[in-house]
Amino acid sequence: MVNYPNGKKKLVIQNDTSNRGMILEDDINQSNLYYLSHAIANIHKKPTPIQVVKVSYPNRQSAKITEAYFKTPSTTDYNGIYKGKYIDFEAKETHKNRLPLDNLNSHQINHLKSVQIHGGIAFVIIAFCHKNEVYLIYADFIINQFKLANKSFISYEEIKENGYLVKQGYHPRLDYLSILDEHYIKEC
Amino acid sequence: MVNYPNGKKKLVIQNDTSNRGMILEDDINQSNLYYLSHAIANIHKKPTPIQVVKVSYPNRQSAKITEAYFKTPSTTDYNGIYKGKYIDFEAKETHKNRLPLDNLNSHQINHLKSVQIHGGIAFVIIAFCHKNEVYLIYADFIINQFKLANKSFISYEEIKENGYLVKQGYHPRLDYLSILDEHYIKEC
Repeated sequence: MVNYPNGKKKLVIQNDTSNRGMILEDDINQSNLYYLSHAIANIHKKPTPIQVVKVSYPNRQSAKITEAYFKTPSTTDYNGIYKGKYIDFEAKETHKNRLPLDNLNSHQINHLKSVQIHGGIAFVIIAFCHKNEVYLIYADFIINQFKLANKSFISYEEIKENGYLVKQGYHPRLDYLSILDEHYIKEC
Repeated sequence: MVNYPNGKKKLVIQNDTSNRGMILEDDINQSNLYYLSHAIANIHKKPTPIQVVKVSYPNRQSAKITEAYFKTPSTTDYNGIYKGKYIDFEAKETHKNRLPLDNLNSHQINHLKSVQIHGGIAFVIIAFCHKNEVYLIYADFIINQFKLANKSFISYEEIKENGYLVKQGYHPRLDYLSILDEHYIKEC
């Protein structure tokens, strides 16, 4: 169980890979909804890319997809706008003291690089579920780790040292944009 | 048939609503690929939102979706970054001399408004297939049309008067970003 500061408990299914990322995703979505409704930012999760193969039409109004497959994402999960800046990030959960680098694919790394080149703010949000800690780490660090030979994961200590702890609360659940205020936007 | 300046002909299926938007979408996707590969901009079509209901696992490696439904989009089709600016737009095709306003839903209109408030560039790309003309029209105009009582469509003449004709070519097929250069970014 993960204890949230608001007293809410959430079940973490440790060995079910299909559930991995779902809790962090839910918390980010809730935070984005808060940011949107308070006119702070407009950031959304992109829909999961799905290849539709067969569609049936049980009646004129509705379409039922009967065969489809998940596609490998070529970009990141989230993007949007905050204080006039283009925001782009990926979110990852881990139940261990490390983030395996194969959790991100090379398309996503190239996408994060490209976002930076065009003047956007690119980062990764990483949740260490068993520690109940969430970090925001700028894409630079992640991109550089990918370049290192024989590097297969980023340790908890490296993320703690190079990233920023995200404040958890009730609304927003994960106040990740405040980190951009402190460490990025004011420096621009 | 639509005649493209490069001599390529494309079949427009006039009465097949399932095909509506697919040709414009393809042209915008090709243009975005050109912009991306030439490091001009990073703009992508968001995946179609789909509600997955049932998934079967024929083997350990693959997941087959056996029941799913299309969801109504709450945002627009495209977003990304160009010259440090957040870009957000919807694309619509029509085979008549008008764009029915019910082609856009109220969530999308609110989304375009919100993008503008946060300092992004929001617009709609409209293709008049039978005329082989594509226009870019800033969101302001579309949002204002939605406010008018008894307004059910925007006419071709209104779009021509208030929008900008998009140059068609080989690469990029639809050079819509040049319009932002001429009429938006230089004014900022």
